[in-house]
Order: sequence, then structure tokens, then C-alpha cells
Amino acid sequence: MRNSEVTKQRLLDAATAEFAAYGIAGARVDRIAVTADCNKQSIYGYFGNKDGLFDAVFDAMVVQTVSSVPIDAHDLAGYAGKLFDWYRKHPEVLRLANWQQLERGDANELIKIMADATQEKVAKVRQAQQAGVVSDTIPAEYLLVLVIRLSTAQLDHCNLDQKKSKALRAAMIEAVRRIVTP
Amino acid sequence: MRNSEVTKQRLLDAATAEFAAYGIAGARVDRIAVTADCNKQSIYGYFGNKDGLFDAVFDAMVVQTVSSVPIDAHDLAGYAGKLFDWYRKHPEVLRLANWQQLERGDANELIKIMADATQEKVAKVRQAQQAGVVSDTIPAEYLLVLVIRLSTAQLDHCNLDQKKSKALRAAMIEAVRRIVTP
Repeated sequence: MRNSEVTKQRLLDAATAEFAAYGIAGARVDRIAVTADCNKQSIYGYFGNKDGLFDAVFDAMVVQTVSSVPIDAHDLAGYAGKLFDWYRKHPEVLRLANWQQLERGDANELIKIMADATQEKVAKVRQAQQAGVVSDTIPAEYLLVLVIRLSTAQLDHCNLDQKKSKALRAAMIEAVRRIVTP
Repeated sequence: MRNSEVTKQRLLDAATAEFAAYGIAGARVDRIAVTADCNKQSIYGYFGNKDGLFDAVFDAMVVQTVSSVPIDAHDLAGYAGKLFDWYRKHPEVLRLANWQQLERGDANELIKIMADATQEKVAKVRQAQQAGVVSDTIPAEYLLVLVIRLSTAQLDHCNLDQKKSKALRAAMIEAVRRIVTP
């Protein structure tokens, strides 16, 4: 990586932690600069402003999630299980998604990022429906939303220790199986 | 209502709007006092501090949701549909729940409020399972979490116009029906 790319990545890492903890309004650009050992001006140079920095963090997070947990439309229950594990291992992902909904839910840039990430997945679910592997009683677009929604169920359950997390995971996978089985 | 109860309710109404918009860290007690036409000291007198005020708002919101949309364990799909409509009509409810997760997810007071609201519902789902009306492949505790999670699916779907909202609602109800049918 070139020097500037190293700096940019260091800024993104520091910003991810800062935004996950405090949200957009609560994040301090000063603190991000200190953590990344960069000067504050470089943040404005690379990302424009705090919103631009958040969008870059969010974009990178979506790209990383999609590439780390690729959809398997022929095994949506297994896919939901892998997403569940990913969110448990990376709690910052669901926090960033929550902050985005609360503080930047109407930002067209982010809506586009998510629409792009979704389009290909919907197409794969639709193909699996046409192949008769997935029930077609629910349109692919909404089926995907519901499966992903279930995979984030740990958010609604306080005090999730190891044992309860395992039980919730099994319940969630069974629910997805019931929804998608033809 | 006594005078002090009127004041308290006016403070809660103003605080609900303020917290829904800005979250806990972003909320300004000054602004709440102005909106409620009260003096700032009365907020500290009634609620202790900003966290205490948020907890009171959250508690009132949970109580109102539970009493406005009582669970019908014999018709969980219908229950999920009514919750969906409630959240659509009162977008501040899901925003408050999101802020709570992000900013006060480890507060024991709130965990207790939710546990109390949940306990009775879980018991009803369990009874419906024992009566053979609801599938018992998923333990009642988790079944309830998953059904409620699905009822909030509109959060994950940007740009939800009237038509798409209706389609998502129908998809969600079909998903719940598939999960709970014995």
C-alpha cells in the first residue's frame, strides 16, 4: 500500500471505533485524529467532513460484511446463522447500522450503498425461488429483508450469555428454515 | 390530574420528542424545559438527571405499547401486524428503542422494565404452545423475540412508501404465520 492508503486505512479504523461508540453527533474528529496519529486536516482532505467520514466507514463495513458472509440462497438458514455469528463477533457492525438509521437514515449516499449491496442478493434469492429450492409465497425482496432482520435478533435480547446466545441462534435458524422451505 | 401530574406529563411529552430526535447524549435538558414550558430544576426534581428522564420516557413508552397492542398468543401473526402498524404510526417508539440499545443497553433499570413487560407475554405464548395452537419447536422465550423482531422489519427497508409498506407487512405476517403454525 502507498503511504496515503496506509494513512486512510488508519483513519477508517479509528473512525469505525469512534462512530460505533458515540454515533455521528457524538463522535469527535479530534479524537479520531489522535487515535489514528494523523493530523485533523487530513480527515477533511480525504473525506470532506464528519458525515463523509461516516459514509466511508459505513461503506467499508457493508463491503466487508458482504464479502465475509456471502449469501447462499440455497441455504438461507445457514446464511442467517453465519450472519448471526458475524454480528456477535463484530458488535460494531450492528451499532453502526443502528446509528445510521437514527442519524443518517435519509442520506441518499447510504441508501445507494445498501441498495447496491442488496440488489445482487435479491436476484440470487429470486433464482432459488424459481429453481424451487426456496418458497415463493414471499417476494424475494421482502424475504431477504426478513431473513436478515431475524439474523440480528440478538439486539432485542438483553444479557445474552453464551448459552442463551446459542439457544437464540438455534431458534432463529429454525424460524428461517420454516419461512423459506417450499 | 393534580397540577404536578400535569407538569410531569408535559415534561414526558417534550422529552419523548427530544430523545427520539437526538438520543440521550444529544438531548438538551434546556430545550425540553422550554418546550414543556417548565423550569429546568423541575426536571431534576422529578427525574433526578437526564438518564432518569430517559428511563421514565422509555418506561412510559413500553407501558403504552403493551397496553395499546396487547399480545394475542392465539393469533401471533395478527399481533405482529398490529405491532407493525403501531410502529408505523409512532415512529418515535422504534427510535427510542434504538437509542436505548446504543446508549443505555447495559442499564439495569431498563433491562428490568423490558423483562417485566416480556415475562407475561412469554407465559401466554407458552400456554398457546401447550394448547397446541402454536408450534412448540421454538421455545416461547425466543419465539416471542423473533416475532417482535420481524414486526420491526420496516427499520431495515429504506424508502418505504405506502405500497411497499403494505407489501412488507403482508410478507412479514406470512413469515410469522409460517413460524408459528404447528
